[in-house]
Amino acid sequence: MNDIQVTVWNEYRHEKQNPQVHSIYPNGLHEAIAGYLRKDSRLKVRTAVLDEPQHGLSEEVLDNTDVLVWWGHKAHDEVQDDIVEKVQQRVLDGMGLIVLHSGHGAKIFTELLGTNTPSLKWRDDGEREKLWVVEPGHPIANGLSDFIEIEKEEMYGERFEIPAPDELVFISWFEGGEVFRSGCCYRRGTGKIFYFRPGHETFPTYHQPEVMQVIQNAVHWAAPTEGAEVTYGRVERDREHQASL
Amino acid sequence: MNDIQVTVWNEYRHEKQNPQVHSIYPNGLHEAIAGYLRKDSRLKVRTAVLDEPQHGLSEEVLDNTDVLVWWGHKAHDEVQDDIVEKVQQRVLDGMGLIVLHSGHGAKIFTELLGTNTPSLKWRDDGEREKLWVVEPGHPIANGLSDFIEIEKEEMYGERFEIPAPDELVFISWFEGGEVFRSGCCYRRGTGKIFYFRPGHETFPTYHQPEVMQVIQNAVHWAAPTEGAEVTYGRVERDREHQASL
Amino acid sequence: MNDIQVTVWNEYRHEKQNPQVHSIYPNGLHEAIAGYLRKDSRLKVRTAVLDEPQHGLSEEVLDNTDVLVWWGHKAHDEVQDDIVEKVQQRVLDGMGLIVLHSGHGAKIFTELLGTNTPSLKWRDDGEREKLWVVEPGHPIANGLSDFIEIEKEEMYGERFEIPAPDELVFISWFEGGEVFRSGCCYRRGTGKIFYFRPGHETFPTYHQPEVMQVIQNAVHWAAPTEGAEVTYGRVERDREHQASL
Amino acid sequence: MNDIQVTVWNEYRHEKQNPQVHSIYPNGLHEAIAGYLRKDSRLKVRTAVLDEPQHGLSEEVLDNTDVLVWWGHKAHDEVQDDIVEKVQQRVLDGMGLIVLHSGHGAKIFTELLGTNTPSLKWRDDGEREKLWVVEPGHPIANGLSDFIEIEKEEMYGERFEIPAPDELVFISWFEGGEVFRSGCCYRRGTGKIFYFRPGHETFPTYHQPEVMQVIQNAVHWAAPTEGAEVTYGRVERDREHQASL
Repeated sequence: MNDIQVTVWNEYRHEKQNPQVHSIYPNGLHEAIAGYLRKDSRLKVRTAVLDEPQHGLSEEVLDNTDVLVWWGHKAHDEVQDDIVEKVQQRVLDGMGLIVLHSGHGAKIFTELLGTNTPSLKWRDDGEREKLWVVEPGHPIANGLSDFIEIEKEEMYGERFEIPAPDELVFISWFEGGEVFRSGCCYRRGTGKIFYFRPGHETFPTYHQPEVMQVIQNAVHWAAPTEGAEVTYGRVERDREHQASL
Repeated sequence: MNDIQVTVWNEYRHEKQNPQVHSIYPNGLHEAIAGYLRKDSRLKVRTAVLDEPQHGLSEEVLDNTDVLVWWGHKAHDEVQDDIVEKVQQRVLDGMGLIVLHSGHGAKIFTELLGTNTPSLKWRDDGEREKLWVVEPGHPIANGLSDFIEIEKEEMYGERFEIPAPDELVFISWFEGGEVFRSGCCYRRGTGKIFYFRPGHETFPTYHQPEVMQVIQNAVHWAAPTEGAEVTYGRVERDREHQASL
Repeated sequence: MNDIQVTVWNEYRHEKQNPQVHSIYPNGLHEAIAGYLRKDSRLKVRTAVLDEPQHGLSEEVLDNTDVLVWWGHKAHDEVQDDIVEKVQQRVLDGMGLIVLHSGHGAKIFTELLGTNTPSLKWRDDGEREKLWVVEPGHPIANGLSDFIEIEKEEMYGERFEIPAPDELVFISWFEGGEVFRSGCCYRRGTGKIFYFRPGHETFPTYHQPEVMQVIQNAVHWAAPTEGAEVTYGRVERDREHQASL
Repeated sequence: MNDIQVTVWNEYRHEKQNPQVHSIYPNGLHEAIAGYLRKDSRLKVRTAVLDEPQHGLSEEVLDNTDVLVWWGHKAHDEVQDDIVEKVQQRVLDGMGLIVLHSGHGAKIFTELLGTNTPSLKWRDDGEREKLWVVEPGHPIANGLSDFIEIEKEEMYGERFEIPAPDELVFISWFEGGEVFRSGCCYRRGTGKIFYFRPGHETFPTYHQPEVMQVIQNAVHWAAPTEGAEVTYGRVERDREHQASL
C-alpha cells in the first residue's frame, strides 16, 4: 500500500481580505484541510494557491499529485485555461479530484462534467445542515453514523445542474426548506471525482471532524488504481483469428 | 399512440376500518387515484383490491394491464406469493409498475429489487414535505415547478435500502429534519418501475393535483414500449461468418 | 403530440472530394438521413452543413430545432468554438442531440461529456459488424430483433473514453475481434444525447433500413420533454416554515 | 489493512461425474480457485460445496466470510431456499459476492437482482473469447492490458436479462458472432456483487492466470468496507430543530 500524494489547492483570497474568514482560517482554509490530512501517515500533503506561479500547479507538482483537493469561489475566472486543461487531462489519466463547496463553479469541474455546474439555488444565512448518508456501504462514508450535522452553513439547493452522479453518497437537508445532492462520485477517464458540498468560508466547517473525515475518506477513495494498460488508435485484425479464416 | 390500460390496485383495508381514512377516501384511495386518471382520455382505468379473488389480478386482468399502480400497507403478507410471482414476470416482460408510499414494503417491490426495501426511517406526525425536482428534464416531472409541497404527510427518511435508482427524479425534505429519495425509476427486464413516496392514508394526499399529476406522468412513462424482440437459449454460430472460415 | 423539428448537420466534405463517397451519397449523407426521416409525418426535417454561414446553425435555425443530428469527421477543428458553445447550451436547455459515428471526435460531443471522446481503437477494413440489443425494452430499439448486421463497416473498438452511459442500448461485435459500446444514452442538463456508432462514409450504411430505424427512434426519444420549470440563484427561506419558527 | 476471509463455494458435481472435467480439475474447480487465491497473503481462503451439510455454509462459516465466490451449474435447484435467503441477507449486510459463469442461473444471483438472470444465449462449442476492458481505471482490471483472451470457452450472448450494472468492466467478444457483458458490478444493501462470465467446466479457464487475476482483484474490491452505521425504524423529530420552533 503506497503513500498517497495529496495537493490541497485553495483560491486563498477571502482569508486575506475578510477579517471574519481570516479569524477562522488564519493560514488559509487549505492549511486547515492539509493539517488534518497530515495526521494520516499514508498521506503526503502539500498545498498550492491561486496566486503562486502557475497557480502552484506546475508539471512537477502535478507529476507528484495522486489526489487534488480544490476550493475556489470568487476568482474562478482567474484560473488560467491552460492550467485547467492540464488538470483535466491529469484527471482523465487517473488523478483523483475532490471538489469542495463553491468549487462547483470552478472551470475544472464544469469542463470535466460538461454541464452548467454553477447553476443551483443558494442562501447565505448560516442555517443548519444535515448531510444524510444514502450509501452506507460506500468507503467515503467510513466511520459515520446516520448523518453529519453542521450548525451553520450556507444553503445550496436543488436543482443542481450536474450529470446524475455515478454514485450518490450524501443528501443534505437544510433548515430553510431545501435539499441537495451533497456527495457525488464520478468516474471520468481513469480518474475519480468527488464533489462534497460543505465549506463556506465564513463558517468553521473544515474544523469539524466529521467533515474532515469525509474528505480524508474521499482522498483514499479517489487515489489512482493500478488499473489496466489500454491502447488507442489503429489496430490490426486479430491475427490468430485471421489465421483460421 | 394507443390507449394505456391502467389497473390501480389497493389493499383497501384502512378505508374500511378507520373512520378518519374513510372520510378522506370514502370509496377507497384506489378510486381517488382512478378517478383522476380517468380524466386522461388516453388512459383506460380499472381497479383491483386485495380481498377480491386472486386479489383482482387474474390472468385476464393482467393481460389487459399496461401499467399497474400499487398501494399496500398493513397486509403485505396477505398477498399470495404466486400472484406476486406472476406480477413480477409481467413487469419483467414489459408491464409498467408504479409503487406508492407504503408499497415500498410490498412483496412485489422487494422481489423485483432484491434488497430490504421495507427498511427506512419513518415518523407519522403529519409534518410538511417538499418534493424537490432534481431531474427537470424527466417526463415524470412534466408540468411541475421547483417542488411539490404537501402540508401534512408521514415522514420517510434515509437510509432507504434500495438499489441506487437508474434515475432519481425527486428528493423530499421533511420539516422534522430528514430527506428521502422520493421518485425512483428502475428498468427491470423490459419493464419500468417507478417508486413515488407520498400517500399516507390518513392525509388527503391523493386529492392534491400536483401529486396526481406525477402519478399520471408516471403512467405514461411506465407504459410498455414496442422495443426489440429478442430470443434466449442455444444458438448456432453466425452462418455467414462460418461460411468465410 | 406535437411535431418534432429535426436538423441534420453534416460536415459534407468527403462527399464532394471522394468519388467513392459521392457515388454512395450523391447529395451528401445528410440528405440520405433527412430523406428517410421525412417519411415520418411527425418529423419536420431540415439540413445544415459546415460550409454554410455559421455552419448553418443560426439562432433562427436552433430556435426551430428540437433534435440535432450530427455527422463530422475530418474537419472537426473547423467548427467554430462559439457555435459549439451555443449548441452545447441548447442541449443543456433541452434540445436533443444525436451524434453519429466519427462525430465521437466532434467538439460538441467532447465538450458535453468532458472526456477524450476521440480516443478509441479503429480499423478501416470494411468488416462485418453486428450491433446486439442489450436493452430490448428501450424505445431506441423499437422494431428491431436480436441484432442489426452491417455487411461492411469501419471497426471501432474499446476502450472508448466516454463516461459510462446512463443507458447502454447496443454493443457491437466486429469480425476482426473487437467490441464497442455502440448505442449510448446520456442526460445532460434537460437535454438528451444519443451516440450511435455506425456510418463510415465509404459504406452505404445510411441506406440500410435498420440503421435508419434506430436514428428515427432516437429522434423521438431525444425530443424535448415538457419537464419541470426550475429556477436558480438566491432564494429566501421557506416562508410558511419560517412562520412556524 | 486486515485480512480478507474468502469462501469459495462450488457445486462440485461435474468434476465427480465427468472424466473430462475431472482431468482438468481433479480436486474440484473450487480448489483450483482457492489455490490461486491462497498465494495472496492477505486472503484467508476456505472452500465449501453443495453436498456438505448446509452446503458448507453454516452460520459459523458465514460469520467468517468477507467474500463468497460462487460456482454452480446443473444443481441450482438443490440449493435450499433458507440458505439462499441467509446468504442474500449477508450480502445486503456487507458480504462480498462473486458469481462465476453459470452461477448467473443460481438462486442467490436471481434473488439479489430480481430479474430472470438465467436468460441469455449460449453455445457450448469451445470457441475463442476476448474479454475487452471497458473501464481501465477500475480496480477489478488491475494488471491487465487491453483484453484477456481465452482459447476455448462456452459462448454466452446478449440479451442477458440483468439490471444494468452499476459499473461494467468487461465486454466479451466471441468467435461465433456474439457479445456479452462479462464483468458486472452491483451494490446491493451495503454489499458488493461482481459477476464474471468465464469458467465453463470443460475448459481449463481457472488455470489461466489473467482470469484468476480478475477473480483476485474482485475479491479485494468486494471485501466489506467499514462504511457508516445507519439505523432504521421510527425516529423522533430533530430535537435542536424543535427547540427552535
